[in-house]
Amino acid sequence: MDEPVLLTGAGGAVGQAILEGIGDAYEWKLMFHSPPAEEPDHEYLVGDVITAEDVEAAVEGVGAVIHLAGDPRPEAPWDSVLSNNIDGTKKMYEAAVEAGVEKFVYASSNHAVGAFETDRRTPEMYRSDDDFLLDGTELPRPGNLYGVSKATGEVLGRYYHDEYGIDVCNIRIGNLTRGHPPIDYERGQAMWLSYRDCANIHACALDADYDFEIVYGISDNDRKYYSIQRAKDVLGYDPQDNSAHFDGEDRVVEPDA
Amino acid sequence: MDEPVLLTGAGGAVGQAILEGIGDAYEWKLMFHSPPAEEPDHEYLVGDVITAEDVEAAVEGVGAVIHLAGDPRPEAPWDSVLSNNIDGTKKMYEAAVEAGVEKFVYASSNHAVGAFETDRRTPEMYRSDDDFLLDGTELPRPGNLYGVSKATGEVLGRYYHDEYGIDVCNIRIGNLTRGHPPIDYERGQAMWLSYRDCANIHACALDADYDFEIVYGISDNDRKYYSIQRAKDVLGYDPQDNSAHFDGEDRVVEPDA
Repeated sequence: MDEPVLLTGAGGAVGQAILEGIGDAYEWKLMFHSPPAEEPDHEYLVGDVITAEDVEAAVEGVGAVIHLAGDPRPEAPWDSVLSNNIDGTKKMYEAAVEAGVEKFVYASSNHAVGAFETDRRTPEMYRSDDDFLLDGTELPRPGNLYGVSKATGEVLGRYYHDEYGIDVCNIRIGNLTRGHPPIDYERGQAMWLSYRDCANIHACALDADYDFEIVYGISDNDRKYYSIQRAKDVLGYDPQDNSAHFDGEDRVVEPDA
Repeated sequence: MDEPVLLTGAGGAVGQAILEGIGDAYEWKLMFHSPPAEEPDHEYLVGDVITAEDVEAAVEGVGAVIHLAGDPRPEAPWDSVLSNNIDGTKKMYEAAVEAGVEKFVYASSNHAVGAFETDRRTPEMYRSDDDFLLDGTELPRPGNLYGVSKATGEVLGRYYHDEYGIDVCNIRIGNLTRGHPPIDYERGQAMWLSYRDCANIHACALDADYDFEIVYGISDNDRKYYSIQRAKDVLGYDPQDNSAHFDGEDRVVEPDA
């Protein structure tokens, strides 16, 4: 990647995981919604994804976009996700193709498929002896309006890829937590994404060759109901973490202990 | 269906096809965007799908909804489809589940999958000796922003079905023309939907039992790249027309002539 990578939503948890892990590996242009508390180590701007001028300024001169910005709350109200997530993502794609950006990595979400977790399937599907597995080829089943907005972001990516040729990778991000997996939360353990694996899969999405992809972004957990095979095969994703390697006391345990 | 059926977008072409074909078979409550030129034969109101009060008034007392309203133009600009089609459909679902409506038939569109028609596949896929076939289980590939809005309407239906239990049938409507198929337009012949088949498939969607469906709404054309098998199997759709039974002079020809 010769040109800078635009990272929107740089102040959020996913943005921080990316910058901590691969901040030195790329030239970045960060976009914050609010002025950052500390002066960033990289070029940055402050702006809103629903403001066309901000978005146009953001994509200027970049070769790729990692688009994380939006309302991140699973319980976000419709008006917010309609504007910030759906309209904001559309504006970002529009500006990106206009500016000749070649690659767009979109932060989709496990919530785009949350309604697969039916009463009948849970909690068994969260356990390692259950064989229920989603692989990204299934039609979305959002569990909330935030999930509807993320599924729509994927559809927008499909349109901009087909119409303008921009390469698009949608990463359905699992449960990102720093340091160790969620405790006493089987679902979160099944879809855990460690900080370093989060950085790793985004690096892979910046470096790999593909046309349009939908992959799951989780660590290599023993428990899982999202396949990471496609991310391995197409992106070269090589996860280092597994929620089973932690016990309830937050201590790392040996894999075979 | 004991209670009236709300038909939104009643003044449009699909609404007219439905009313001409099955206007006497159900009790209707029509919703028009603009006052109708002639006094309708059924109860009606004039309102806008993006106005909550209008939508709440519309669903009051109805047992089912056929939701056709929205900007119908394939070339409609984003702001219009974002508001009228995406937000409007969300408001209609929200009001419908709040009012206890049991069944929601959504006018999706061939444009939700228009980008499957790549340069490499066309025009061969429009012809009867080609075996390319979409069946509704594929992920959307919209060919325009109108198609993005229709794919999003399907996702909204999935969410409202999963979350609230309302039965949802998405009909990806083909090329509806009165009297005869489009002339000198292979694509339109392949996805032709006659007026009576349009009325028929909507009657089936009102009468059949299902949970959540995505079906193609086209006549039984010799040329076709949309499967109607699911509509036949689940809805009992029994199409009467076939674009191959018309010649270029608009005259009906014998099937085996």
